[in-house]
Amino acid sequence: MKTGIWLIGARGSVATTATVGLLALQARLTDTTGCVTELPELRSPALPALGDLVLGGHDIVATPVLKKAETLAAAGVVPGRLVAALTDRLTAHEESVRPLPSGTQPQVSAAIGADLAAFREKHELDQVVVINVSTTEPVFDAADATLGSYPASSLAAHAAFTAGCPFVDFTPSTGARLPSLDTLARDRGVVYAGNDGKTGETLVKSVLAPMFALRNLRVRSWSGLNLLGGGDGANLADPAANAAKVASKQRVLGDALGYQPSGTSRIDYVEEIGDFKTAWDLVTFQGFLGTGMRVEFTWHGCDSALAAPLVLDLARLTAAAQHAGRTGPLPELGFFFKDPIGDGPSVLSAQWDQLVALVESL
Amino acid sequence: MKTGIWLIGARGSVATTATVGLLALQARLTDTTGCVTELPELRSPALPALGDLVLGGHDIVATPVLKKAETLAAAGVVPGRLVAALTDRLTAHEESVRPLPSGTQPQVSAAIGADLAAFREKHELDQVVVINVSTTEPVFDAADATLGSYPASSLAAHAAFTAGCPFVDFTPSTGARLPSLDTLARDRGVVYAGNDGKTGETLVKSVLAPMFALRNLRVRSWSGLNLLGGGDGANLADPAANAAKVASKQRVLGDALGYQPSGTSRIDYVEEIGDFKTAWDLVTFQGFLGTGMRVEFTWHGCDSALAAPLVLDLARLTAAAQHAGRTGPLPELGFFFKDPIGDGPSVLSAQWDQLVALVESL
Amino acid sequence: MKTGIWLIGARGSVATTATVGLLALQARLTDTTGCVTELPELRSPALPALGDLVLGGHDIVATPVLKKAETLAAAGVVPGRLVAALTDRLTAHEESVRPLPSGTQPQVSAAIGADLAAFREKHELDQVVVINVSTTEPVFDAADATLGSYPASSLAAHAAFTAGCPFVDFTPSTGARLPSLDTLARDRGVVYAGNDGKTGETLVKSVLAPMFALRNLRVRSWSGLNLLGGGDGANLADPAANAAKVASKQRVLGDALGYQPSGTSRIDYVEEIGDFKTAWDLVTFQGFLGTGMRVEFTWHGCDSALAAPLVLDLARLTAAAQHAGRTGPLPELGFFFKDPIGDGPSVLSAQWDQLVALVESL
Amino acid sequence: MKTGIWLIGARGSVATTATVGLLALQARLTDTTGCVTELPELRSPALPALGDLVLGGHDIVATPVLKKAETLAAAGVVPGRLVAALTDRLTAHEESVRPLPSGTQPQVSAAIGADLAAFREKHELDQVVVINVSTTEPVFDAADATLGSYPASSLAAHAAFTAGCPFVDFTPSTGARLPSLDTLARDRGVVYAGNDGKTGETLVKSVLAPMFALRNLRVRSWSGLNLLGGGDGANLADPAANAAKVASKQRVLGDALGYQPSGTSRIDYVEEIGDFKTAWDLVTFQGFLGTGMRVEFTWHGCDSALAAPLVLDLARLTAAAQHAGRTGPLPELGFFFKDPIGDGPSVLSAQWDQLVALVESL
Repeated sequence: MKTGIWLIGARGSVATTATVGLLALQARLTDTTGCVTELPELRSPALPALGDLVLGGHDIVATPVLKKAETLAAAGVVPGRLVAALTDRLTAHEESVRPLPSGTQPQVSAAIGADLAAFREKHELDQVVVINVSTTEPVFDAADATLGSYPASSLAAHAAFTAGCPFVDFTPSTGARLPSLDTLARDRGVVYAGNDGKTGETLVKSVLAPMFALRNLRVRSWSGLNLLGGGDGANLADPAANAAKVASKQRVLGDALGYQPSGTSRIDYVEEIGDFKTAWDLVTFQGFLGTGMRVEFTWHGCDSALAAPLVLDLARLTAAAQHAGRTGPLPELGFFFKDPIGDGPSVLSAQWDQLVALVESL
Repeated sequence: MKTGIWLIGARGSVATTATVGLLALQARLTDTTGCVTELPELRSPALPALGDLVLGGHDIVATPVLKKAETLAAAGVVPGRLVAALTDRLTAHEESVRPLPSGTQPQVSAAIGADLAAFREKHELDQVVVINVSTTEPVFDAADATLGSYPASSLAAHAAFTAGCPFVDFTPSTGARLPSLDTLARDRGVVYAGNDGKTGETLVKSVLAPMFALRNLRVRSWSGLNLLGGGDGANLADPAANAAKVASKQRVLGDALGYQPSGTSRIDYVEEIGDFKTAWDLVTFQGFLGTGMRVEFTWHGCDSALAAPLVLDLARLTAAAQHAGRTGPLPELGFFFKDPIGDGPSVLSAQWDQLVALVESL
Repeated sequence: MKTGIWLIGARGSVATTATVGLLALQARLTDTTGCVTELPELRSPALPALGDLVLGGHDIVATPVLKKAETLAAAGVVPGRLVAALTDRLTAHEESVRPLPSGTQPQVSAAIGADLAAFREKHELDQVVVINVSTTEPVFDAADATLGSYPASSLAAHAAFTAGCPFVDFTPSTGARLPSLDTLARDRGVVYAGNDGKTGETLVKSVLAPMFALRNLRVRSWSGLNLLGGGDGANLADPAANAAKVASKQRVLGDALGYQPSGTSRIDYVEEIGDFKTAWDLVTFQGFLGTGMRVEFTWHGCDSALAAPLVLDLARLTAAAQHAGRTGPLPELGFFFKDPIGDGPSVLSAQWDQLVALVESL
Repeated sequence: MKTGIWLIGARGSVATTATVGLLALQARLTDTTGCVTELPELRSPALPALGDLVLGGHDIVATPVLKKAETLAAAGVVPGRLVAALTDRLTAHEESVRPLPSGTQPQVSAAIGADLAAFREKHELDQVVVINVSTTEPVFDAADATLGSYPASSLAAHAAFTAGCPFVDFTPSTGARLPSLDTLARDRGVVYAGNDGKTGETLVKSVLAPMFALRNLRVRSWSGLNLLGGGDGANLADPAANAAKVASKQRVLGDALGYQPSGTSRIDYVEEIGDFKTAWDLVTFQGFLGTGMRVEFTWHGCDSALAAPLVLDLARLTAAAQHAGRTGPLPELGFFFKDPIGDGPSVLSAQWDQLVALVESL
């Protein structure tokens, strides 16, 4: 099943890392570390093979992907030797990355659709999955938005659905989370998933919070500070985008614990810190007889390296679900997201069980 | 179902905290935070009620439990107001704590049995569960040991089994983990469980290691340092006891990950640190394309406050299992232990599922 | 030299801890840990003896100091045994704590002056030092303020100076830092010092930042998060007061390094965390050939226990300086402050040298 | 003043980083970050200019320095672009690196002396400083050792002194710290310095411990764990070498505090951690009224990048001191060492003052 992945934000850090990675996997220059769908429990003939994936996408930025890959290599995000070995393939990939269309929203939606169709035809693809990995938008609150008043992420979802393509939002932006778009997806018989890839601090929360719950320990406060530079971080210096991200970071606590502890999770942009984010969390809790205790953790991770393989996983899973006749939201993909669409569990182990069941059903 | 809990090491920190706690619960002076069997998923009429539990035990130490409780209150382990309010009950409890018998191993086993019988009769108990919360023994390697050559923890198990009582080892000592004792337990139709209560660093490991596994991230090294004072810590300054404890601390990693990462977990006794242990762990791991990342955590917990409610939980669960006709080891109690008897899962969520299933079966 | 200490905010955490501590020292129930003026290098006959200090003060709060002391004992800030042993003395001390006068600013200044005179007379004091340990005010920017338009801390300084008393501001509030007050202090021949006691994260910064400077290592970013509950923390939830505090926390970096690294220091109020503040700092720096490195630290301290002995130190030093004929600001007390008055050094070791020289000169 | 630096261990990580760095400085490809002697307070015409330094040395390893530099670049220790730009110079440098001579101790000493003479002649050097940056030796206890029974580091010192060259030991090995070698150095009129470069955890200790002392806070325990891989780390897996290093790591505490707190500093070799060492320290301390508090820090540094510029500094300072007529030990260089020769201060700021005074005297 030859499957295209159309990335909104195709020249960004996550997209470029995913591109280098997929090309490296196809050239057998790296192993599948970080790819969840390569775990024994999830391997399935229902999923398109890694060798059957083709990448393309839109971006408003003009820097070539190869150039971006070299920048990421200098920052230690991807190995320089891979970028050097894949220079020809990265240059060829450039042809599949197009400028984001402009115009009225109906015009843009149609132009995106045309690009998707051309991509599909050129590579003889069975399907194309659209994945949003562009920068986070400010919080958007108009639930009754329709074509003409969509934020950019929702416009992309509209174009994808209209073209019969699944849509995944890896960002905390609105994306497909609007009634008009849910209706459109069901009408066109396509699946969608999101939001906000769970790659670091929230991932740890989704295993640590259940630990307290299962031991009947009372979490009093959970406070965090995320320090990050790099291109994605700069965007979060904008308070509105920051608010969107912060809200989705504490949600898991209420879900896993059954109550909301005190404390907030902050994000600070510090350019000098670069692509390797540092997050520090302090959890204070009470045990038997009210005795106060605490745990703190520091996460030092590279968001792009954590996100990129999940983008490939989501493309494979969404394509397979679509092929199996699923339509509308895929809450079983909550494993991948900070703020999953639907009412699924927040606890990582429960999300994993749902994911395994989904793959078995395809 | 009136149930006795006979503690080996009844004047130690864990036992005293459990005693203050149970009396406080029975006097409605505290809530059930920390008691796993009070979670909705585990509440069951099959378990003896908290009000139906009675404590007693052996110790080689002579300091009264009330005195020990006051020391623990000064150290912030238990609230001073509870010790003050429970002075009469703690004094009354003293009558049920007896010196550990001495003599040849057959004599000691018989004397322990006599104490158990007297305890049962005095309090009109339906059953008595024996739980070892004494200090950790040096590693013991003679799998063919029999009565006469047992370490102290195994002698206690022998006495319990002979008296028809379930036995739980909350320490890393040998306890019931000998072929001759397994045979005896099955012959007498009693259950047993252990070993080594999972209360801190290893608890965190049992949720964090699976997180890496589920995301297909490769853990390169996992190193830890545990700093603790207090009475239990002093014993671990002995290299042989230390080795027993350290080995059971890394086991979970191999189980959860499928391979053993580099690094060791150390325990250092630092008297000045007192009862609130500090453990620091550094985990280095590789993600997509080999990118190196890391997480570190610091756990600052009070072992006695974490262990004490689990002692009550284990008594309730073991008593109920025995009453339901189970015999031999209870691997479904792996949730509570660093080094569970049997081949059960090491991942906390899987252990929880087993525990829920056990309670439903009773 | 019998010396009074008149505390603005006499019923707060810092004042109560200082009161319990001074009474305990005078009753020989504790040692002088934390008292800088008891170090060999600073012991001097020029300083009033600990036994010659007498406490009093104003507060807008009515809770008795004894009651507050019991609350602090329950929170582990002061030992309960000391509060119990000092009950009579704390009750007697209550007579020297008066409600903060109200009225127009000239009326209030006069009423404070009357209270100071009565305190001096009652205890036959050679001098009285006024120290502000009340909650932090919002940032105040009117450098041309005069009597009638002063913030509360400056009004207290005005009253002190008019009464011929030294004034110390232990908070980041404006206090004596106004031209009109500097003139008044010089006219009346009194000394003053401040601002903002250096008790935790900033103290560590004042030794760690010079370390980087002396090794010619380039600090790229320095970010911090302070989490604190307790009464003083609640006030900082007010953004304006928070801003005042945060600004004085980064100043030391520019002074010690010669440039301002990226990053900010945040303060979050988390009620559940209580009186023991936790601060986490991440420092990223470059070494030889641009190699990036990092250090992080977590400070877990009790602000009241750190501040209280410094209040006693400042009273002794200020009284001695006044007695030796000094007048106007005392920049040599920069050792004690986050944001010292004057152009003194920010590096702790240099501040120490200045302090030693000051004491030798008295 | 053209000055040679003869490195014992010239193909190791520290030596290679120093070599890449000096060549890069001379080619104006990098700045002087990390070079202490480039700070304004220490710049002096008495010191040889960076452009007048020439490197050479011995090693038992045969891997070319260029090859080692490429390995360090891959590990992120030095920038790959510098190694690429300096390929010709690194190849030329190779001619000045010779195999460590073998034979009886008198033969080896003479052969080292011949190599030093040839190096001096070839490069027309005014002097040559010998610096030991080889791997740490096991603890050596025979204070009466003489030629024939020396450990390797002392034999190198013997050869240096006999050849009239200053000797610096950057390792914790014995080096010149033997009565027979001190006598020899004075007889030949040469200077020497050491031991054990202070580059990470101990550097932090040397500023943090004085902070507690100046505030009269009582340190109860200070425990540390150093995790490191890389070539130097492997050597420390040897318990005897480890013991040498660990002892010199706690010494600063007793010196700075006036008493020895509890706790030890451990070193664990974890190959996967590589060249960027992680050290974690926990300090528990008491403040006013005995209130317990704590600070922990994590140091994540690259030892080679921290050590290399100090090697250049020590060569410049030692050469200048020798030229100024000093002879015997140079205790004023304690700033650079964990375990300085002589009775100088352990506090970093005091060591800095001594260093500034030394340079002014030259």
